Amino acid sequence: MWFMRQAGRSLPEYRAVRADRGMLECCFDTETIVELTLQPVRRHHVDAAILFSDIVVPLRAAGVGLEIVAGTGPVIASPVRTRDDVHDLPALDRASVGAIEAAVTELARELSDTDVALIGFAGAPFTLASYLIEGGPSRTYQRTKALMREDPSTWNDLMGRLTNITVEFLRVQLDAGVDAVQLFDSWAGALSDAEYRTYVLPHSARVFAEVADYGAPRIHFGVGTGELLTAMADAGPEVLGVDWRVPLATAVSRVNRPVALQGNLDPTVLFAGETVVDREVARVIDDADAAIAAGAVGHIFNLGHGVLPDTDPGVLTHVVELVHSM
Amino acid sequence: MWFMRQAGRSLPEYRAVRADRGMLECCFDTETIVELTLQPVRRHHVDAAILFSDIVVPLRAAGVGLEIVAGTGPVIASPVRTRDDVHDLPALDRASVGAIEAAVTELARELSDTDVALIGFAGAPFTLASYLIEGGPSRTYQRTKALMREDPSTWNDLMGRLTNITVEFLRVQLDAGVDAVQLFDSWAGALSDAEYRTYVLPHSARVFAEVADYGAPRIHFGVGTGELLTAMADAGPEVLGVDWRVPLATAVSRVNRPVALQGNLDPTVLFAGETVVDREVARVIDDADAAIAAGAVGHIFNLGHGVLPDTDPGVLTHVVELVHSM
Repeated sequence: MWFMRQAGRSLPEYRAVRADRGMLECCFDTETIVELTLQPVRRHHVDAAILFSDIVVPLRAAGVGLEIVAGTGPVIASPVRTRDDVHDLPALDRASVGAIEAAVTELARELSDTDVALIGFAGAPFTLASYLIEGGPSRTYQRTKALMREDPSTWNDLMGRLTNITVEFLRVQLDAGVDAVQLFDSWAGALSDAEYRTYVLPHSARVFAEVADYGAPRIHFGVGTGELLTAMADAGPEVLGVDWRVPLATAVSRVNRPVALQGNLDPTVLFAGETVVDREVARVIDDADAAIAAGAVGHIFNLGHGVLPDTDPGVLTHVVELVHSM
Repeated sequence: MWFMRQAGRSLPEYRAVRADRGMLECCFDTETIVELTLQPVRRHHVDAAILFSDIVVPLRAAGVGLEIVAGTGPVIASPVRTRDDVHDLPALDRASVGAIEAAVTELARELSDTDVALIGFAGAPFTLASYLIEGGPSRTYQRTKALMREDPSTWNDLMGRLTNITVEFLRVQLDAGVDAVQLFDSWAGALSDAEYRTYVLPHSARVFAEVADYGAPRIHFGVGTGELLTAMADAGPEVLGVDWRVPLATAVSRVNRPVALQGNLDPTVLFAGETVVDREVARVIDDADAAIAAGAVGHIFNLGHGVLPDTDPGVLTHVVELVHSM
């Protein structure tokens, strides 16, 4: 078990490190990455560390002008909207993520004599494309979807380049010693199954295929993706992340390949007091048992989305103890 | 066919009326309601007018201190978070929505010798509760869900009072002559099916039951509600709105009652040029035919969510002509 966004604002020790330092500055500083990655392991005794990073880190490393603005999210200096913009998109040079490579190497060494797994991650091509095209976070993805539908050739060129960046970023992490990787397609849930299959699945499937030779478990996650679970499993991961809207036993009925499931406690449950927390944790475990009985390969306990910043870290520690006791 | 949020910022004539006037001011002015409701009928020749209003109008009419802040949405002066706050929530007095009643009366008269239907609307209790508890729009609904799970008694008291307000607001509209009503549960998609059934469905079902005697078609809609379609149909509407994530033919397989379907063109399709628009409109119509063949009672062409403000109104008019020609 682990928590998405466990290395984050719910921890006072995280807020202390980040007090006077920007997100991207921290994401490119080896010592900070190591410290922030290990904080939730020390405090909560989760079974896995997730590399402290951000979805846009490989874009910035490749040379895309962007900032992460507090309260807003990534802001792209020159949004990518034309064929020429796409042609100008740089590739990712390994040397530009040397600080991250060094952090993974250090983390793998520190965790080598423990049972704690180290999980690497990257944003999926669709989610990266949405930031580049919209210029930042969006509620509608209207420009992204317009480009995708109107000019599939330019779209596929962009997605191909982003797939290359994602693959290279994951390979750096795998070469340096992560035990598993998670591909976050945070915003894929904005698409219908038919459009996901046409415009996104071939690229995400290539990401998984091109890191398959490492033999490390590959996790695929998005939020609001109930309608896409079949397709997201078809992309080839060993583990499929599920948000809280879809019971795990329902999720397993939607996949046509043997996968383990990850999830899916609603992160807002952690605000509702111990009685509710205990009941809902038990419900997820029961649901996971039902999913395994129905054919799921296994279950990784997690939230259905990231830890919310206001979460009491004591509640997170309690959930870890509870799950480990069950 | 009609478009959710057809009376809105996509129309230059709407922006002209709203240029120097706040949303709530317009929502309580009879002449403005009539004008804004009719604008899209005149321009697009849609088959239905949807009453120009806002989900929070009956709350404001009942005396809840709130504003609609441009770029943010509703902001509640004193969020409702305790048992005492709930006890203080006022009921809706018909006299306080007299301006809206007068607008519906006038609209019904103006449309009486046309084939254009007049649709009334109200926000569903869960969506109203989320605004009251969070104090405004939310991405997580963490306080709403915490109250719901931690204190079901206070929650049900709040939802009962909101149900009364919603029922009264819909009755005012039905008494004044609307031909149909739509209950918008905009944010219900944040819930799992199990929680929706426990905490929300009984209240929304009561809304539908208490306006059943008018014999007017009742439409139920939320966004991101693929997992909730069975339960939302169980609430009792004649028509179930579906967003673009769920094909209409899939939606009909999820309902256990005979319902017509409404939807479900992705509103972002309207940004992608005429070839894509025409193809996607045809796809929705084909999908609706398949849904009807599979048991849907009928189909109302609409978007899968509201018209986006940047939409070219010429494209909306084109879609109306196209659907009417098919």
